Amino acid sequence: MLSLLPVVGLPLIRKGDPLADLIVDCFSNTGGFRSGDILVVAQKVVSKAEGRVVRLEDVEPSEEALELAHASLKDPRLVELILRESREVVRVRPGLIVVEDVRGFICANAGIDRSNIEQHGEGEEVALLPLDPDASASDLRDRIKRVAQTAVAVVINDSHGRAFRDGTVGVAIGLAGLPALSDRRGDTDLTSYELQHTVIGIADEIAAAASLLMGPANEGIPAVVVRGLKLPVSEASAREIQRPRKLDLFR
Amino acid sequence: MLSLLPVVGLPLIRKGDPLADLIVDCFSNTGGFRSGDILVVAQKVVSKAEGRVVRLEDVEPSEEALELAHASLKDPRLVELILRESREVVRVRPGLIVVEDVRGFICANAGIDRSNIEQHGEGEEVALLPLDPDASASDLRDRIKRVAQTAVAVVINDSHGRAFRDGTVGVAIGLAGLPALSDRRGDTDLTSYELQHTVIGIADEIAAAASLLMGPANEGIPAVVVRGLKLPVSEASAREIQRPRKLDLFR
Repeated sequence: MLSLLPVVGLPLIRKGDPLADLIVDCFSNTGGFRSGDILVVAQKVVSKAEGRVVRLEDVEPSEEALELAHASLKDPRLVELILRESREVVRVRPGLIVVEDVRGFICANAGIDRSNIEQHGEGEEVALLPLDPDASASDLRDRIKRVAQTAVAVVINDSHGRAFRDGTVGVAIGLAGLPALSDRRGDTDLTSYELQHTVIGIADEIAAAASLLMGPANEGIPAVVVRGLKLPVSEASAREIQRPRKLDLFR
Repeated sequence: MLSLLPVVGLPLIRKGDPLADLIVDCFSNTGGFRSGDILVVAQKVVSKAEGRVVRLEDVEPSEEALELAHASLKDPRLVELILRESREVVRVRPGLIVVEDVRGFICANAGIDRSNIEQHGEGEEVALLPLDPDASASDLRDRIKRVAQTAVAVVINDSHGRAFRDGTVGVAIGLAGLPALSDRRGDTDLTSYELQHTVIGIADEIAAAASLLMGPANEGIPAVVVRGLKLPVSEASAREIQRPRKLDLFR
């Protein structure tokens, strides 16, 4: 049996807030962490705690951003931020800019979105992805170990679109203490046929499962604890999930 | 809180086996179904119960299959089946054939794989996807309602690769009694900013979550019950998840 437990009662997170401490505190009302738990945290609150928030009125769009804003029908200031957060623009259509972001992820809008950011007066703010989501996950893991005296794994998730399927699903953009992929090639199945090509996106499946409890705004419940999954402790990186360019058949 | 409960003790499924009855029987040891439960069943056992199993030695590869087998380094008889189950070959590289299958899904090998099929003497067998996975899910749902007197939703899941990310994840290929997508466009978030582009692949997230308990062979635990997710009853189809060709940016 697997349990997904929401961390309830977190306040709206602002820059500098001690996110790990707040999560430990709120989750103590649900019995607290146990060894082997996997904490999944929505990217948005990690970004906000890390101050990765930009006021659009402070952004000066470049020529390139103005052109791309025209093609995508997006706010030029938002497009400027998308370009700064990207290595390459992969696809553009009205309403959508798909990029390879600076972390290597293929995603819409470099992971920047506008929902659930508080508006201060006229100045609209957006949240960028954490600079290094694996490092963010490691920091959360280390801090929880100190505060709660418990070894948990941490996944930072975001909602990504897919190339061929509608609807966003939770994926892992940062992780600490668990594998990114579960490579079962060479294992045998029940009838002893050697399994082939069975590398499971285990961290992404965990991210998707937690996303079921998070909802679209990702802030009512921005943290979920997955309990009951036996995984080895690992020093993996979410970047392992990104397919290398030379094996990419669809770009 | 969300619970994922494995249905344990299912026998190896063969053609004609009463899958719904067997699931109800096995799950009664875990307390049985409750109204609102979502039953996720691995494609492989549905296919086997429906007799969607083919002996490779009975397959005569066409010229086209022989050529594609050469390019993909796959068994020509398997390639013949992949072609019969497909509308279009989308990408080929050694070890991989990505197709649009007859159901409209973009997937590797038209969903055909070789693991966990019993080998009878020298004759190796493979399982094709159910002809109409939504209908298969509906049948399971109706039968469970009769046998267990409980209204459950049903998802048939399979493991799919992704365009840009390594590792397979569980996705919904058939469903009954729940939405395929959760369209939250127009809802407002905590700070009253109107959410945009927020169509959630809810059935896929459920499929991925259940996949965490199924393991790669998909037969040790081929059925998982998801409990605690409040979703409206819906007559949706898993085909709604497939992005229409005209909106496909990557083919």
